[in-house]
Amino acid sequence: MKHLTHIRDLGPEGVETILAQAAAWKGKAPAPLFLGRILGMVFFNPSLRTRASFESVMLRGSGNAIVMDVGSGVWKLEDRPGAVMNEDRAEHIKEAAPVLSRFVDMLGVRTFSAGGDDEQDEVDPVISAFRRHVTVPLVSMESAREHPCQGLADMLTLRENFGSTKKLPVTLTWAPHIKPLPKAVPNSFLLTAAAAGCEVRVAHPPGFELHPQVRAEAEAYAKATGGSITYTHDQAEALAGSRAVYAKSWGPATRSAHTAGDVSALLASHADWMTTRKTLSRAAADALFLHCLPVRRNVEVADDVLDHPTSRVIDGAENRFHVQRSILSWLLSA
Amino acid sequence: MKHLTHIRDLGPEGVETILAQAAAWKGKAPAPLFLGRILGMVFFNPSLRTRASFESVMLRGSGNAIVMDVGSGVWKLEDRPGAVMNEDRAEHIKEAAPVLSRFVDMLGVRTFSAGGDDEQDEVDPVISAFRRHVTVPLVSMESAREHPCQGLADMLTLRENFGSTKKLPVTLTWAPHIKPLPKAVPNSFLLTAAAAGCEVRVAHPPGFELHPQVRAEAEAYAKATGGSITYTHDQAEALAGSRAVYAKSWGPATRSAHTAGDVSALLASHADWMTTRKTLSRAAADALFLHCLPVRRNVEVADDVLDHPTSRVIDGAENRFHVQRSILSWLLSA
Amino acid sequence: MKHLTHIRDLGPEGVETILAQAAAWKGKAPAPLFLGRILGMVFFNPSLRTRASFESVMLRGSGNAIVMDVGSGVWKLEDRPGAVMNEDRAEHIKEAAPVLSRFVDMLGVRTFSAGGDDEQDEVDPVISAFRRHVTVPLVSMESAREHPCQGLADMLTLRENFGSTKKLPVTLTWAPHIKPLPKAVPNSFLLTAAAAGCEVRVAHPPGFELHPQVRAEAEAYAKATGGSITYTHDQAEALAGSRAVYAKSWGPATRSAHTAGDVSALLASHADWMTTRKTLSRAAADALFLHCLPVRRNVEVADDVLDHPTSRVIDGAENRFHVQRSILSWLLSA
Repeated sequence: MKHLTHIRDLGPEGVETILAQAAAWKGKAPAPLFLGRILGMVFFNPSLRTRASFESVMLRGSGNAIVMDVGSGVWKLEDRPGAVMNEDRAEHIKEAAPVLSRFVDMLGVRTFSAGGDDEQDEVDPVISAFRRHVTVPLVSMESAREHPCQGLADMLTLRENFGSTKKLPVTLTWAPHIKPLPKAVPNSFLLTAAAAGCEVRVAHPPGFELHPQVRAEAEAYAKATGGSITYTHDQAEALAGSRAVYAKSWGPATRSAHTAGDVSALLASHADWMTTRKTLSRAAADALFLHCLPVRRNVEVADDVLDHPTSRVIDGAENRFHVQRSILSWLLSA
Repeated sequence: MKHLTHIRDLGPEGVETILAQAAAWKGKAPAPLFLGRILGMVFFNPSLRTRASFESVMLRGSGNAIVMDVGSGVWKLEDRPGAVMNEDRAEHIKEAAPVLSRFVDMLGVRTFSAGGDDEQDEVDPVISAFRRHVTVPLVSMESAREHPCQGLADMLTLRENFGSTKKLPVTLTWAPHIKPLPKAVPNSFLLTAAAAGCEVRVAHPPGFELHPQVRAEAEAYAKATGGSITYTHDQAEALAGSRAVYAKSWGPATRSAHTAGDVSALLASHADWMTTRKTLSRAAADALFLHCLPVRRNVEVADDVLDHPTSRVIDGAENRFHVQRSILSWLLSA
Repeated sequence: MKHLTHIRDLGPEGVETILAQAAAWKGKAPAPLFLGRILGMVFFNPSLRTRASFESVMLRGSGNAIVMDVGSGVWKLEDRPGAVMNEDRAEHIKEAAPVLSRFVDMLGVRTFSAGGDDEQDEVDPVISAFRRHVTVPLVSMESAREHPCQGLADMLTLRENFGSTKKLPVTLTWAPHIKPLPKAVPNSFLLTAAAAGCEVRVAHPPGFELHPQVRAEAEAYAKATGGSITYTHDQAEALAGSRAVYAKSWGPATRSAHTAGDVSALLASHADWMTTRKTLSRAAADALFLHCLPVRRNVEVADDVLDHPTSRVIDGAENRFHVQRSILSWLLSA
């Protein structure tokens, strides 16, 4: 049985398979790909694009989705093996995952990082518990370590605009925020861009390094695909010659930076990392702008970037639909 | 592309179109009017009738609905142009509206008035932001200024019972409540009743005047349709000869009445405006009772009115289904 | 019009009808049993299995469900006749039930016991108010007194494993918990097991007696079916020779035990009632373990019981689907 919770489930070859199918089906009349099929969607965290796009994929393919919100409409769920369950989590994933598997054909789970502990994000406890206990294919709708659907949608957007991603110079640039965000999206951009053969530049202030295991995994993909990855604290250096700029905020690298002292002040001290038209002027003349959304306007990215014709944020969001249709079809294939 | 966020989108002629189609289809076997179509429903506020009736319209027409709750299941949304988004609203409607438009065929939005500021209600900032940024037809499921589906359902109820609404004497009477409510429903009753040619009487205590712009718009409709509108502080005077009584609570006219002093005390001081059988005895002998629901029994309206054979509150709620089927079909027509 | 809110709506004969149809359809390709039909689902309380299983039943039968959460997405509802509605409940079931009935073909309601008042649970005020005011068939998704779908699913699980439930020795054993739980599930197990002809043994600590009216009703069913019921405070005595062990926690029998003193301490004082492999060793050699879920692992039941091959908790949860398909089909039959 197939699952897609991390890019390593696909590797560079699988990334090509998903993207090729997504591109082939885009714009064509939707076929009843999911006739009689149900996707169960379990949300531990809020969602707009993910909820609407996955549900739309199922409905437009003549299938259906069942949406469950953990902690409001649904019991809080325990993931720790052997737990003595005498606190607020009323049900264990050991039961929830196999039980839901009896009622649906595929399961999607969204579960954000608890924040501030990259080692725990590597373990990815909630999605991993689901993976151990489901009996139907599982797809990540973003977990602590990765948001693979987002990374794949970003690659589709790049390919549509540039034809190929082979050795395409792209910058992932850190953005300011009012609070420390999870690293699932930057991790996924890095991993999928490397798997798609991009020349990836990652720019961030000191102290915001991505996790060594994620970086090593991306490095291996780049080596396999002829891509490359460089890291810098100098935004302008990264941008030089970049054909695409991907802005995203994420929290500090070390746990101590979250707990000791004022994270807000740390984030605010890098307010000049906000992407503006001036920032973009340092990239290639035809550079496009991408962001995963939601975006805090005039904090992460200036209005004039988002409202400029070179922005692909709305097209990029639409591509969530197209890659997810491809993913769900792949999950159901033998 | 068509939208229906305010009665001015229809005018008296459009009101006739919607009502005629709703009446023609009522009671007939539902056709696959919405085959393969998805209505996205965005709720900033709770709903029972609206959620169930819109979803039922889509399902009975072989379509589907995707339901999103802002602030619980979905990110809080920003509507202000140029906002520096460093507070709790994580996403701008400038992104949310066009992104959702890529996943659905129509969008519905419910967004109550923030309360106490009629000028802001005239601006109707949230639904207006959606209207600017959607790329599919938009329908209001109640916004700050109006609740057009409710007003149209009320007119259908009147026509079913009285054959015609031309010069039909109807009273909109203010009702007591435990808190100041938005004016979307009374505004919509006034506007649609005027557009349908009714002889409208509006009765309320001093200080609860409806907004001058709404009144002027209704006046223009009445002039065009041969209807009329009168305002009084004397409930009995309004009721004399009325064939239908529509009770509804709303808040004070001026912002100062909300902020300065005790609104609850103000509302309580008019407790005798509650509709009882005795109130209704002042109307025509065959007068019917309507209310948009939800209704606070024995605060706004007495049990004996709601449980009396002359009440049309349940039939009126059912008519939400019928006018909404007509509206959504009209929105999708070229 | 048929309703299923309590086992008395079926009696022993109806229980047989539901179980026979559920068994006959299990494993067969789903037919379009619910083509064009909508089940409205109103949740006053959280749910995982119930929500997913009912929605799946409708979707797999070519129908649909509309899900509403009272108090978050939907107004809080009043059930008391004659109430002066000046508190937080904005809508009366007298309106909500008939209005929803206009938009759907069947209604399901989940409404837990307020807790600690068995007399009120007997009255079962919320589901009873819905029953009085709906105009379409109503099914309980658990109310204060009973959870009939759960009881029926448990009987299906027993029959699948043992062929027949006639004089089958089964133990319902009380389990420890961190808080006092409603009695709907133990009540329903008792009632359905008696109606299915089991030899039922109920074991619990002193002070946790089930309500006399429930016990009397179960006794009548047992008399009619050749079953039997015994009560004991001695878990080992009950288990001797039992072919199935059903563990479930519930609160004290008397209201005073809830209000006076520390319920948590009372519950904790019976921590040794947790079901372990050692507990099960006192039952028959081939004894199976059942639980309605959610289960607090290592509080109510030890890991080694739930993870043992003799556990039927996941299969039992799947049977919710099968009995509910049978129930909804029965509700719609003339």
